[in-house]
Amino acid sequence: MASIKNLIVGCGISGASLARKLAEAGEQVVIIDAKDHIAGNCHDYNDNGIMVQKYGAHIFHTNDKEVWDFLSRFTDWYPYQHKVLGLIDGQFVPIPFNLNSLHALFPGFMADELEKRLLENFGLNKKIPILQLRKTGNKDLEMLADYIYEKVFLQYTLKQWGLAPDQIDPNVTERVPVYTGRDNRYFAADKYQGIPAEGFTEMVRKMLDHNDIQVKLNTPFDKTMEYKQLFYTGAIDEFFDYFWGELPYRSLRFQFAQYNFPKFQQSAVVNWPCNYDWTKSDEHKYFLNDQSDKTIISYEYPEAFQRGVNERYYPIQNDESASLYSKYLEQAKSLKNVHFLGRLGDYKYYDMDKAVARVLELVKEIAK
Amino acid sequence: MASIKNLIVGCGISGASLARKLAEAGEQVVIIDAKDHIAGNCHDYNDNGIMVQKYGAHIFHTNDKEVWDFLSRFTDWYPYQHKVLGLIDGQFVPIPFNLNSLHALFPGFMADELEKRLLENFGLNKKIPILQLRKTGNKDLEMLADYIYEKVFLQYTLKQWGLAPDQIDPNVTERVPVYTGRDNRYFAADKYQGIPAEGFTEMVRKMLDHNDIQVKLNTPFDKTMEYKQLFYTGAIDEFFDYFWGELPYRSLRFQFAQYNFPKFQQSAVVNWPCNYDWTKSDEHKYFLNDQSDKTIISYEYPEAFQRGVNERYYPIQNDESASLYSKYLEQAKSLKNVHFLGRLGDYKYYDMDKAVARVLELVKEIAK
Repeated sequence: MASIKNLIVGCGISGASLARKLAEAGEQVVIIDAKDHIAGNCHDYNDNGIMVQKYGAHIFHTNDKEVWDFLSRFTDWYPYQHKVLGLIDGQFVPIPFNLNSLHALFPGFMADELEKRLLENFGLNKKIPILQLRKTGNKDLEMLADYIYEKVFLQYTLKQWGLAPDQIDPNVTERVPVYTGRDNRYFAADKYQGIPAEGFTEMVRKMLDHNDIQVKLNTPFDKTMEYKQLFYTGAIDEFFDYFWGELPYRSLRFQFAQYNFPKFQQSAVVNWPCNYDWTKSDEHKYFLNDQSDKTIISYEYPEAFQRGVNERYYPIQNDESASLYSKYLEQAKSLKNVHFLGRLGDYKYYDMDKAVARVLELVKEIAK
Repeated sequence: MASIKNLIVGCGISGASLARKLAEAGEQVVIIDAKDHIAGNCHDYNDNGIMVQKYGAHIFHTNDKEVWDFLSRFTDWYPYQHKVLGLIDGQFVPIPFNLNSLHALFPGFMADELEKRLLENFGLNKKIPILQLRKTGNKDLEMLADYIYEKVFLQYTLKQWGLAPDQIDPNVTERVPVYTGRDNRYFAADKYQGIPAEGFTEMVRKMLDHNDIQVKLNTPFDKTMEYKQLFYTGAIDEFFDYFWGELPYRSLRFQFAQYNFPKFQQSAVVNWPCNYDWTKSDEHKYFLNDQSDKTIISYEYPEAFQRGVNERYYPIQNDESASLYSKYLEQAKSLKNVHFLGRLGDYKYYDMDKAVARVLELVKEIAK
């Protein structure tokens, strides 16, 4: 692979977006991925008429019109509105916790009372951290804050991050929200959301379908590869052979099940904060409203990331890992012809839109 | 085309109605259209059992019995009752905003309170401009007025007309209605409404099916054509070679999608005031209650009208365009044997019934 001008490592949404932008700027691009498929963690595939998201629920959502318009060149969108239900006290109620959750879970007169208190204190359609409820001095709202903390947040978070209760950062508590309205959508604040009408993989395939882009799958990066510019979306600590130590990640294991009936749950994603060891179940047919007598579910089990065993998913962000990452970042800056990007390259929990926005910014910087 | 007595330009509902009326009065008529189909913007076609309205949702509705009776000679009517839902705060609620919308969106006790205030102030089943709500001095009704303005009107209007918020004429605000009743129908005030049982195109075809009417498609008007009387339903500014300048229009782009499931939305038309760049999605099978395992949707994207690029849809009516139009109108009056009519000829946003009423009037005038 001598004489490669631009080498992109990683064929996820970051790498693919970058490949396209570079190719359209007249550059020759080779993009490689160690895996046997494109589209990284948003990879999906059709299983007997059901589009299955291999690495868990991915819903594209953004307020960034530039990003939306860029991706819309490669796909139509199914205008899916994401809703999440959580099994709380035996009922599947909207998450984040809102007025509909309140009425589903509490006896009528209590729900009415709490609703009035919430609206008096905070107004309609506001996202209020439960810490604010505690500060009102109202006993009922304090009780509600405790309820939400315990039933919606605490046990879910313990599973998600594999922590013991005393390891929970108290500051995190403040951020657990209650929504003082009836909008059940998970991404209520985003103007644009959807699932690519033919799936994420097809969208990425169209992006990569350009004369000046060469795709090589089953091709891990190795240091002997030659290039003029390298764009690396893999783990930055791995790139530097873990010189400063290993950046911590949380991983996920997916257990798939196929059931011989049409519908398993009432929304694409259900959270199970209080039961089982999985955090979520994803029913894939919801994303594109696929019609089938069967249904395919994936149960998401959070687990420790282990090199060579499973995949990196969520950066575990704390002071220690921030300080570690900053050392790698410093080292990265010394390499003139290497750019890091993507969730693993930047060690940031990017949503898909932020990953693409980062690419669009990077391309503008390079053009200067 | 020498010796033509009556030449009608444009085969939409105006031109076709006129052709029929003239033919029935004993006149020889030639009617031409630049397009390859009849029925203008209410053209529809059968796609595997679903009647698709090519240029967006057209629902015939009127209180004019003469117009209804005239059209009813050429079609039976499917008694479709038009309803529009809008995605507001995560729910598809009736538009125009009514008491059902109120109860869907607001917490129970607030909805009850607002409903009482509305009915005390305005009575049952009234269409009230939100400006009236502001004038009551009641804080709750003011809040409701602001809510409707923001969530139902403002963002929709910005998309529809391609405006910035500060370009909104404040007087327009006054006209945004709230309906103090539970009638979800969009045309609640109209005695007659429906969709031609075999489609608009077939209705127009029957109209034109007369020995003294000759139809020529793919035939743009040109100045060398000879006639004794010309009836022109095209754009009046184009007729005069844009002598006084171009009359402004807003255009639409339709993005069609076919989905492999029976129902996409809960009404024929859904408004998306707060999400996406389209204003509406139309699900065509609703109009005639077509049964199919599939469904066909058109998303309506408003866009600037550009000559030669897209079609004229909505006259952009303001002082400037009114003054411009009046110059063309003056010029038109000097031509003794040329009549202008239709949405483009009269530069008016006619509903279909008003376009036909205009024809019936014109024919009476001519007969005098």
